[in-house]
Amino acid sequence: MSEKNNVIDIKKRSGISTAPMPASEKAYVTGSRADIQVPFRKINLTDTPNRDPSLPGEPNQPIFIYDTAGIYTDPKATIDLEKGLPAIRQAWIDDRADTIELAEYSSDYTKQQAAEELNIPLFEHNRKPRRALQGKNVSQMYYARQGIITPEMEYIAIRENIGRVALQDEGSLPACVDSHITPEFVRKEVAEGRAIIPANINHPEVEPMIIGRNFLVKINANIGNSATTSSIEEEIEKMVWSIRWGGDTVMDLSTGKHIHQTREWLIRNSPVPIGTVPLYQALEKVNGIAEDLTWEIYRDTLIEQAEQGVDYFTIHAGIRLAHIPLTVDRTTGIVSRGGSIMAAWCLAHHQESFLYTHFEDICEIMKAYDVSFSLGDGLRPGSQADANDAAQFAELITLGELTQIAWKHDVQVMIEGPGHVPMHKIKANMDMQLKHCHEAPFYTLGPLVTDIAPGYDHITSGIGAAMIGWYGTAMLCYVTPKEHLGLPNKDDVKTGIITYKIAAHAADLAKAHPGAEIRDYAISKARFEFRWEDQFNLGLDPDTARAFHDETLPKPSAKVAHFCSMCGPKFCSMQISHDIKAAFSEKSEEFKAGGSKIYHHV
Amino acid sequence: MSEKNNVIDIKKRSGISTAPMPASEKAYVTGSRADIQVPFRKINLTDTPNRDPSLPGEPNQPIFIYDTAGIYTDPKATIDLEKGLPAIRQAWIDDRADTIELAEYSSDYTKQQAAEELNIPLFEHNRKPRRALQGKNVSQMYYARQGIITPEMEYIAIRENIGRVALQDEGSLPACVDSHITPEFVRKEVAEGRAIIPANINHPEVEPMIIGRNFLVKINANIGNSATTSSIEEEIEKMVWSIRWGGDTVMDLSTGKHIHQTREWLIRNSPVPIGTVPLYQALEKVNGIAEDLTWEIYRDTLIEQAEQGVDYFTIHAGIRLAHIPLTVDRTTGIVSRGGSIMAAWCLAHHQESFLYTHFEDICEIMKAYDVSFSLGDGLRPGSQADANDAAQFAELITLGELTQIAWKHDVQVMIEGPGHVPMHKIKANMDMQLKHCHEAPFYTLGPLVTDIAPGYDHITSGIGAAMIGWYGTAMLCYVTPKEHLGLPNKDDVKTGIITYKIAAHAADLAKAHPGAEIRDYAISKARFEFRWEDQFNLGLDPDTARAFHDETLPKPSAKVAHFCSMCGPKFCSMQISHDIKAAFSEKSEEFKAGGSKIYHHV
Repeated sequence: MSEKNNVIDIKKRSGISTAPMPASEKAYVTGSRADIQVPFRKINLTDTPNRDPSLPGEPNQPIFIYDTAGIYTDPKATIDLEKGLPAIRQAWIDDRADTIELAEYSSDYTKQQAAEELNIPLFEHNRKPRRALQGKNVSQMYYARQGIITPEMEYIAIRENIGRVALQDEGSLPACVDSHITPEFVRKEVAEGRAIIPANINHPEVEPMIIGRNFLVKINANIGNSATTSSIEEEIEKMVWSIRWGGDTVMDLSTGKHIHQTREWLIRNSPVPIGTVPLYQALEKVNGIAEDLTWEIYRDTLIEQAEQGVDYFTIHAGIRLAHIPLTVDRTTGIVSRGGSIMAAWCLAHHQESFLYTHFEDICEIMKAYDVSFSLGDGLRPGSQADANDAAQFAELITLGELTQIAWKHDVQVMIEGPGHVPMHKIKANMDMQLKHCHEAPFYTLGPLVTDIAPGYDHITSGIGAAMIGWYGTAMLCYVTPKEHLGLPNKDDVKTGIITYKIAAHAADLAKAHPGAEIRDYAISKARFEFRWEDQFNLGLDPDTARAFHDETLPKPSAKVAHFCSMCGPKFCSMQISHDIKAAFSEKSEEFKAGGSKIYHHV
Repeated sequence: MSEKNNVIDIKKRSGISTAPMPASEKAYVTGSRADIQVPFRKINLTDTPNRDPSLPGEPNQPIFIYDTAGIYTDPKATIDLEKGLPAIRQAWIDDRADTIELAEYSSDYTKQQAAEELNIPLFEHNRKPRRALQGKNVSQMYYARQGIITPEMEYIAIRENIGRVALQDEGSLPACVDSHITPEFVRKEVAEGRAIIPANINHPEVEPMIIGRNFLVKINANIGNSATTSSIEEEIEKMVWSIRWGGDTVMDLSTGKHIHQTREWLIRNSPVPIGTVPLYQALEKVNGIAEDLTWEIYRDTLIEQAEQGVDYFTIHAGIRLAHIPLTVDRTTGIVSRGGSIMAAWCLAHHQESFLYTHFEDICEIMKAYDVSFSLGDGLRPGSQADANDAAQFAELITLGELTQIAWKHDVQVMIEGPGHVPMHKIKANMDMQLKHCHEAPFYTLGPLVTDIAPGYDHITSGIGAAMIGWYGTAMLCYVTPKEHLGLPNKDDVKTGIITYKIAAHAADLAKAHPGAEIRDYAISKARFEFRWEDQFNLGLDPDTARAFHDETLPKPSAKVAHFCSMCGPKFCSMQISHDIKAAFSEKSEEFKAGGSKIYHHV
């Protein structure tokens, strides 16, 4: 297959969605420099109808929401998958003058792959990899600790101010008014380790975002092929689909064929940070034999992926020899793939894992590219029976020790968390994590609050995710309906994302994040005023809401009707409420004269 | 249309599901008298395979779970919709000798309807209505306070002991061993008002169940037609469908045509308690004009429904005149249908509602049939903005006052709760309810923890439901994906039920209800042992789990494979865990001799 054919394949076969969301436009807020252009999704609303239809309605201001979709939903943008997204951060990276463009890739594996004839579409590289200059540290944490506010930090400060973005004047561009989420606040949170900005210098396409418990709760979508299913086109499609519905980061967990090439396509086209578990690819390189893994192969894999632009690495460095016997009598053993691989390696060699013994070497790599640690919870519980057990917490304490080593190198860290945990044991997870990991951001999978609902684990885990998000988890890793059963397809990805947007937003509300309640208020006002279109458009999934409504009442007239098919026209409580409200205002004279006293609270 | 034709219609057109659940059988535990036959669903499991395939596997004991499905899932039973279910409680009611069989129905409306020629299928009545003898009280609370343990109470004590049901000997019938949930415990909880047994003497078909926070958390499914959609056949189908998936009670919220006749079909064929909001039908009788409602029409409706066998009535008696002005400036006004109707009536008449002023008259009716109160929260919040506001809590305090009046009459009471509430405000709802309503059982709708996800409100509410269930709510009223958008269909009903079974079970786990964890343990053990069929069958929805798995790996061999399509064969952490476990047991000599010390925890 020729390269040209490959490119055409990707274009033709990838069914990525580029339409704007309903009633929505891209709105960019400009920062202190012209190239800081922070995207919001502006949802335009209809007027509140007057009770007297002959009078004009009352306008409703548009709502600005956090937008993860990148330029895919911007009709003004040109999407060209084989060219990749614009490198919006390139000038910021260049201006810092602390990196060097390499003549060639440093990884042996990358070089080997470039030399091979592969029968798959290849991304045509048009940019060389960068690395920190000798002796330099290019992590956002390093800058933050030097007192430097980077353009990334300013971008994030604007982006997080969902409650403060408003039109300056009618018809003007939106701007962001002051709030406590300032660029300096972002810097301080990163400097102190409470938040991370996953932004590899080799991923200049990324739209900067932050993960920390004093910011909006984020969600991650896992995609990736496995040995049994999926193609490169499908993975690109799933990535774009994930961010359309609100995914804040995407983890490529591919364990099948052509992991390197799939990842290149994903990163070049991803406006959100990409995370990986480098161990998966390292294991592929040794044909799946855990004991054949070596530090050298793993190290080369880290460099390979760092030079492609992966923004965070899940590294299961917290599993120590002494933890392994603690898992033997568990109901479900070790359920983390990375955790089980490393445990098998330790057992084969009777040695502490190379991830643990080489942790400082790993830090050196991380700071040369600004890759963030996502310290993996290899011993997370895989069942209610194993929740909060000795194995889990022993590893957590080790993760806290590793956090301090990473911070010594000014490397950004987040900590992964469970898993399967009943509701009454969730808070202890957050409390233990804050204490032992020194307030590094927590990044949890669920937790699933029961084991008995395969096919619905987006829900069992969405319950736990909302709760732990409220308690302080910074990012929630989604779970799809296919969890425990198979690889998610595009529909499953969407269901997982929407469920986790619900959990994250519910957590933002419970934490009283400034501005989180604006969207709830707007949709409830629309609902009460029978502005059906606005109600659909303000929801997380306008398409589904509209389709459900239209199942029974498809006519356009039903979109302004003062009822729906749930209660029918005579029984709408909201319609009656309007009448009551009107009675209290219109008949106020009557009430004052006669019966008003009976309505007074006693 | 002749009556005969009607009957055939129902049989032919109703697509009720009567198949047993996969790998499941009905198992009955016999109580102190032979006619106390308590149903459980026995899930049969396969053996745990031996690591050496030449050796026999290890048997897994069957699991007994709470079964709401009635005889519809019993292949030995004959289902005949036009005859209704067997009257399993009739002898118990007769034995008490405190009721009288009436020669004719007491309600004027019932008599009118009987005289009309209706072009719909009619249930052929073969049993006359009963009422308490003059001066008698036939409520379970009355008996409980007299120190009487009724057969209903004993039935419930057996039924709640999910953790204690086991086979006595191999192949024998199951029996229930002792636990703290004794018949006497049930009696005491009912006597003290902490639990109710909704069981109208005119619903002898009901399989007794209990609603109280010291028992398993229950769920209710709302069904019912509206003026725009649905038929009698569909409503029967939805009822049977609801209980198949785990609905503990069903509320018939019909507001459309032939409410009386639809209800008759439902009650005669329902093994679970049926609840209604009598106000809906009363309003139909005055053509939807709230101000035309009268106590007399309402009273006749209560008697009409009580003599049909409705087990609990939602009655919005807590809305007082003084509460109405508190709702005027709300974001979403009054969102309860019953609440808005009563507020409109109060406003039209400038009087306290007849539900409030005639509350003791209502109690007299309730105790003559043993109908339980579900005191409606007419002023529940319909948006995050209105959560926990003055209107809501003012009504709650009134509901507490009414509870004490009902208890004076030994009438059973539960209290309805919200609604839309952000996570951090949920616990206050439970605390306020316990305090002001004197520990009467709480029955909540959700609560929905955000307003922004129309189309997914089973999930937004499932989160809140799980939490408030953990905090002490006794019954959770389901919400379907169609909430706010339209009338749920059969698929929506199932999704709502499964979501709420998750919430209720998660709450049982968090409350450490005896035996709740057995099913989680069994499914996790099956998962860890790659017993795929058992994993499906132990789940809340075996059909969906199996279908999801088979999407990518449909072959029978995949049902015993040590992997799924999520990670593929080389990466299964559970398989690696088995190897680790084997290493620790098989190589123990090696470890003792050489490297074992390095695995010791320090």
